Amino acid sequence: MRYAPALAAALLTLAAGSAAKAEEGMWTFDNFPIARANQTLGTSIDQAWLDRVRLSSVKFGGCSAGLVSAEGLVMTNNHCVATCVANLSTQAINYAETGFSPRTREEELKCPGGSAEILTDIADVTERMHAAGAGLEGQAFTRSRDAEASRIEQEACGGAADKRCQVVSLYRGGQFKLYTYKKFSDVRLAWAPEDRAATFGGDLDNFSFPRFAIDAAFIRLYENGAPAQTPTHFTWNAGQPVEGTPVFVSGSPGATQRLLTQDQLFSVRDVVLPMDQLIASELRGRLIRFSEESEENAFIAMDPIVSIENTYKRGLGRMRALTDAQFMTMKAEQEADFRQRAEAGAGDNNPWTTLTSVQPILRESYAAYALLEGGTGIGTTPVAGGSQLFLWARTLVRGAQERAKPSAERLPEFADSRLAGVQSGLFAERPVYKALDQVRMEWWLSKTREWLTVDNPNVRALLGNESPEQLSARLIEGTTLGDPAVRRALWEGGLAAIEASNDPLIQYLLSIQDETRAVRSDWEARVQAPTDRASERLAALRFQTYGDSVYPDATGTLRLTYGRIEGTDVPGQRFGAFTTFDGLWDRATGAAPFDVAPKLLAARERIDGDTVLNMAVSSDTIGGSSGSPVVTAAGEIVGANFDSTVLTQRNAYGYDVNVNRSVIVTTGAVTTALRDVYGMQRLVDELGVR
Amino acid sequence: MRYAPALAAALLTLAAGSAAKAEEGMWTFDNFPIARANQTLGTSIDQAWLDRVRLSSVKFGGCSAGLVSAEGLVMTNNHCVATCVANLSTQAINYAETGFSPRTREEELKCPGGSAEILTDIADVTERMHAAGAGLEGQAFTRSRDAEASRIEQEACGGAADKRCQVVSLYRGGQFKLYTYKKFSDVRLAWAPEDRAATFGGDLDNFSFPRFAIDAAFIRLYENGAPAQTPTHFTWNAGQPVEGTPVFVSGSPGATQRLLTQDQLFSVRDVVLPMDQLIASELRGRLIRFSEESEENAFIAMDPIVSIENTYKRGLGRMRALTDAQFMTMKAEQEADFRQRAEAGAGDNNPWTTLTSVQPILRESYAAYALLEGGTGIGTTPVAGGSQLFLWARTLVRGAQERAKPSAERLPEFADSRLAGVQSGLFAERPVYKALDQVRMEWWLSKTREWLTVDNPNVRALLGNESPEQLSARLIEGTTLGDPAVRRALWEGGLAAIEASNDPLIQYLLSIQDETRAVRSDWEARVQAPTDRASERLAALRFQTYGDSVYPDATGTLRLTYGRIEGTDVPGQRFGAFTTFDGLWDRATGAAPFDVAPKLLAARERIDGDTVLNMAVSSDTIGGSSGSPVVTAAGEIVGANFDSTVLTQRNAYGYDVNVNRSVIVTTGAVTTALRDVYGMQRLVDELGVR
Repeated sequence: MRYAPALAAALLTLAAGSAAKAEEGMWTFDNFPIARANQTLGTSIDQAWLDRVRLSSVKFGGCSAGLVSAEGLVMTNNHCVATCVANLSTQAINYAETGFSPRTREEELKCPGGSAEILTDIADVTERMHAAGAGLEGQAFTRSRDAEASRIEQEACGGAADKRCQVVSLYRGGQFKLYTYKKFSDVRLAWAPEDRAATFGGDLDNFSFPRFAIDAAFIRLYENGAPAQTPTHFTWNAGQPVEGTPVFVSGSPGATQRLLTQDQLFSVRDVVLPMDQLIASELRGRLIRFSEESEENAFIAMDPIVSIENTYKRGLGRMRALTDAQFMTMKAEQEADFRQRAEAGAGDNNPWTTLTSVQPILRESYAAYALLEGGTGIGTTPVAGGSQLFLWARTLVRGAQERAKPSAERLPEFADSRLAGVQSGLFAERPVYKALDQVRMEWWLSKTREWLTVDNPNVRALLGNESPEQLSARLIEGTTLGDPAVRRALWEGGLAAIEASNDPLIQYLLSIQDETRAVRSDWEARVQAPTDRASERLAALRFQTYGDSVYPDATGTLRLTYGRIEGTDVPGQRFGAFTTFDGLWDRATGAAPFDVAPKLLAARERIDGDTVLNMAVSSDTIGGSSGSPVVTAAGEIVGANFDSTVLTQRNAYGYDVNVNRSVIVTTGAVTTALRDVYGMQRLVDELGVR
Repeated sequence: MRYAPALAAALLTLAAGSAAKAEEGMWTFDNFPIARANQTLGTSIDQAWLDRVRLSSVKFGGCSAGLVSAEGLVMTNNHCVATCVANLSTQAINYAETGFSPRTREEELKCPGGSAEILTDIADVTERMHAAGAGLEGQAFTRSRDAEASRIEQEACGGAADKRCQVVSLYRGGQFKLYTYKKFSDVRLAWAPEDRAATFGGDLDNFSFPRFAIDAAFIRLYENGAPAQTPTHFTWNAGQPVEGTPVFVSGSPGATQRLLTQDQLFSVRDVVLPMDQLIASELRGRLIRFSEESEENAFIAMDPIVSIENTYKRGLGRMRALTDAQFMTMKAEQEADFRQRAEAGAGDNNPWTTLTSVQPILRESYAAYALLEGGTGIGTTPVAGGSQLFLWARTLVRGAQERAKPSAERLPEFADSRLAGVQSGLFAERPVYKALDQVRMEWWLSKTREWLTVDNPNVRALLGNESPEQLSARLIEGTTLGDPAVRRALWEGGLAAIEASNDPLIQYLLSIQDETRAVRSDWEARVQAPTDRASERLAALRFQTYGDSVYPDATGTLRLTYGRIEGTDVPGQRFGAFTTFDGLWDRATGAAPFDVAPKLLAARERIDGDTVLNMAVSSDTIGGSSGSPVVTAAGEIVGANFDSTVLTQRNAYGYDVNVNRSVIVTTGAVTTALRDVYGMQRLVDELGVR
């Protein structure tokens, strides 16, 4: 139906292998398949179009965003500014509840610690990076690579405050590119709706469609205390969208694992996701009960609960994918095809064999690494349950220890080229709620003890003779790290200040460095390094086999993906392309989370009920794509990606054109909200809406 | 090492098929392999020995127990009397904290709602049961079978208050036996230790060894207001156990699923356990936080938390088994062997094909059935989160509706033969904590809404326009079902009283009967009935193929299993056979749950530190075996089974002699506790210890 017959046949051929299918792929801007996209969609985009889209695309925290005016105005999702809103709010003046609608540009408020970036340049550094790892194994390999990346970044960006350089590993180490960004460290909140208008349906409607959420917000980029001049930006199109329209989604999808082998997928299915999901579920229960204890706790826990529910539901979608026989058969067939074509050429250094042999070690050591160090790249366990105080303490202690060494010998996150980013996170003024941090730290200590077992030497070091309840209470109660001046003084005082500190959390972090660093080294040496090397080899074989018709896994860097505005009709997921404001009024029950936000409800008479509120598109997106501008071939922005469906979560491992749907809030709905609900005509004017 | 070479060869042959391996099997008393057990263990037990063991074995609630004196004294586990202890306790007089050590027999207190049974007779009713199902399909098959079972039970036991009759399905419907029990409705608590003495190490040490827990307690059976006369009982042996000693464990293991096919196991792995474990984990989190809110909440939530942690940890062991490649290969090989030998004889009515075709339906409907009805037999989801008030209301509403019909047309749990049991549960005087019930009911409504999705018609019926928080608060606050007199009046008033009741929980249960009963009917018709029929066919083929060398899955009825006192040496589980009191003192840190119970600690000087406290045995046990007497070939009781290991949880699906270890509290340790710690010399005397 969607393809001309001749093209469909060609695509079938492609689809038989591991090469990307039509509409599949989170492509880098320097390897975007312009011809194929134009052929598939019947469009005629060109390199100039690509450049304009890239320079209008903004990375904001873990989210994506798009420039929509010449004065630095940027649209993203409301959930992408949630931390900013929370940091600017108190229980008394709670912008999450009321929305944030500054009457003048001067009243737009700075997001604490907020920064945004635009990708200005891409350069190939593959040769240097491969040379750095040549002949090395295990941890020496990882460290040499990390040090080289840091050197490249430092050489290119030096200490420039308005630039960031990043060596990006693509194709699991098959390519390395140096990405240079223009960086904005002054980001202001320009508008956010009432939170309920953005989260109507709450966790229950999250990762689903039909959907009725105005999950949009605006920030503004500042330079030298004034709005940034941004002549290159998307054109705002507030008209009604049309089903079947080709669209492009430009953003920074976080992470996919599409090149994982069968054995690696089984480890994720059997070990990684079960632990992560089970312990997240318990934290969720603790936080829900905590939030019910008082209005203050409800306020404090709102954002963390939304966050953990989102992570959890995504994990659930992934578990379903990995236990879906049909999906796993497709993955197995792709691997079989690849191995059949490529394995003979692999010689002695067979990456499949290596990856198979790594899995028992990964399965054995995953819990320790995930719980004690976090950031495995395959799971979702937040170290210390995301306790902000704990993480600051760790940054201070390790930062002091590492900065005493030459840059190339440090843990990579403390290399010279990355210190500016570390400091900006550490010094940010943001509220800390000790009661919440204590819940999280108690949970983390308790789950670590449970999963590693009480007789594990690391657990003994972690707890001594205290229980998780006692220890977390003592550390959180006694610490003064909530004060940014204290953090700054400790950072600037270096190792001497850290060692002299009597802050219990600093002392605690100092006391567990031997154990936690050893767990990390062990993981890097026995899991990460051999996996990286084998994956690099796989990527090379893949190039040889399928050419550049393959795209790299998402890595949190800018990508372009394409598709159409359309619904879906597969089992468990049948829906049309659009929802409207009338649909919202129909769905509302009045009981949370199906209560319409008060200001939105009050504006009902002013709103055209037929206005399209949300829509589905078939583009290939994933977490991190949130806020991504959805753009037509004419360079007009028609919406912002804010979600996908539960079934779509399988796209972590593979794309399915019949299933994969991104969920978009339309520019029409945003225009309506600004003009008819929140009194933001000044932004409507700035967007050029007549 | 453990077998003579000739025997080992014979066992290897056996092990190649699906027939039971030496030491494997939870055997019924009317088909115990006396010769094989004697050959394996070098013992010489006979039918008289079997009869004595059977008549000395007691079923107590969901636990097992053993008679140890001629005056009705019975040893079981402390965790088996936890509900009794909780029901007898208040926050002020908390026997869980102090232990319960009545100085005289007259001070032994009646357990509210407690009852115990001894199996007196087994008769074959296979023919009648098979005839009842002949020619029927779907729900008609299930209902006709249930009705026939109820008729058989009613004919045999009538209304006798001191007997219970139960038609037991063995070999998944391959055999049906009528079990007749002598029933004791007056059970008194004779001794329980401090809870911490029984739960030292808490959830962390649960399902593990080495272990240091005096998880023992005594109850006493009463008849006509006086201690029951029980001339047949085990002989108490308080001596030190010897490694390698052959032992028999007699008890009522709850449920195994060893005859599940590969496809059924995959459904448990992919659908059943993930949901059950994930939602249990969230309830655990909610309850933990609830328990931290006040001392009263800590008291209220103690028993429920222990219970859910136990279920959860067992589920974790099962998830590990089902994702253990080696174990699953063993299961696959057993099935392949069986199919190869038997499938040709299956003809058109191939049970494997049927079971394969049922799995997609099971996967699709499991969440609805488990959440709305509970009791799936394969998962662990407690309906309404175990809210006692909700369950009473359901029993009252359904009981009234069902009793208006002839016995044979009712839901089987309300057949005439089962009403006495229903009433005794319903009328029992036990404390109800509304705050706890509300937490559970809120959680249950919330998870039901999440897993079935908010747009599911059943969820709409369940919630109307209320949120789980609002609805659970309103129902629990308004109900008066906590009062046993209210429950009795509603039960005795029948349907008219129920329909006239203005109790909100009764009204609520009435309002959701159409939906919940439909979900149950659907499950019974499309999953349960075809599964039962195919399983029966499988069982028949199994008999033809392997003869009576196979034993039936555990069904909560009396079984005998055998093994030796011994440790284990497999990866992840290496330990010797014994622990001692000295080991307990060494392990104690002072911080909960590694704090020694105060009275036990105070008695340290009086206790011989070399006394064996706990031991491991290789017998084939599972949940429900708790409290099982561990008996020598001489008929002496040497301990009570109270646990196994996490790895042993795989025995739900298959027995592994190298892995499977039951954890036992020794009679020596119990004697020490009674005599040296709790001042219970009168029981020591009654046990005949010199």
